[in-house]
Amino acid sequence: MPDSKTMKAAMQAYIDSFNSGDPEAVVALYADDATVEDPVGSPPRQGKEAIRAFYRETVATGAKLTLDAPIRSSHGNSAAMAFSATIGPLLVRVIDVMTFDESGRFTSMKAYFGPDDLIR
Amino acid sequence: MPDSKTMKAAMQAYIDSFNSGDPEAVVALYADDATVEDPVGSPPRQGKEAIRAFYRETVATGAKLTLDAPIRSSHGNSAAMAFSATIGPLLVRVIDVMTFDESGRFTSMKAYFGPDDLIR
Repeated sequence: MPDSKTMKAAMQAYIDSFNSGDPEAVVALYADDATVEDPVGSPPRQGKEAIRAFYRETVATGAKLTLDAPIRSSHGNSAAMAFSATIGPLLVRVIDVMTFDESGRFTSMKAYFGPDDLIR
Repeated sequence: MPDSKTMKAAMQAYIDSFNSGDPEAVVALYADDATVEDPVGSPPRQGKEAIRAFYRETVATGAKLTLDAPIRSSHGNSAAMAFSATIGPLLVRVIDVMTFDESGRFTSMKAYFGPDDLIR
């Protein structure tokens, strides 16, 4: 199980890679068979190709992610973070929860935001 | 599936009931067969009696919960919130994720915080 420091560093790398406009750097944080459920309640995407397609699209929107509070880890193989995504005039309030494999890569990501978490 | 407004109101009621020192009001927000994994990585408690015992103990600590950012819902039956718990000189940074039944009661709670999310 990766330690808290490793998991938090990967979460921060996710934010930084996204904001630098580098979808491949984001995808590299994921394990090969990982799942992405973004938003929670939508069909999960599974595997590197589906995840790559997702981040190519979302990073290309120019969205910028800003942490709302320090990243949390856990006593297991999970971590969570609250952030706001700004996309032009739109602000989306999100909480992401990731699970990790032994090497510190994401095995799953769930993005919690609802229809009323989009602020114009 | 409960709507976003219903789920967020239950999350806020959790914070308010906890802060008012009323463990029974917190327990009443849960479905009968719900699970509580607090912190994530510890054995889940299941059922009203186990959950009641947990909140009698934790509410009695005098901990007070303050949201760090607005509560998030989802496009499914889940919601999440980032908060800080102050217990005397101790501050714990937490993200709670709840799932809901049709009537808007919690069917599961997971509390994400690690050893390094306790600040003295």
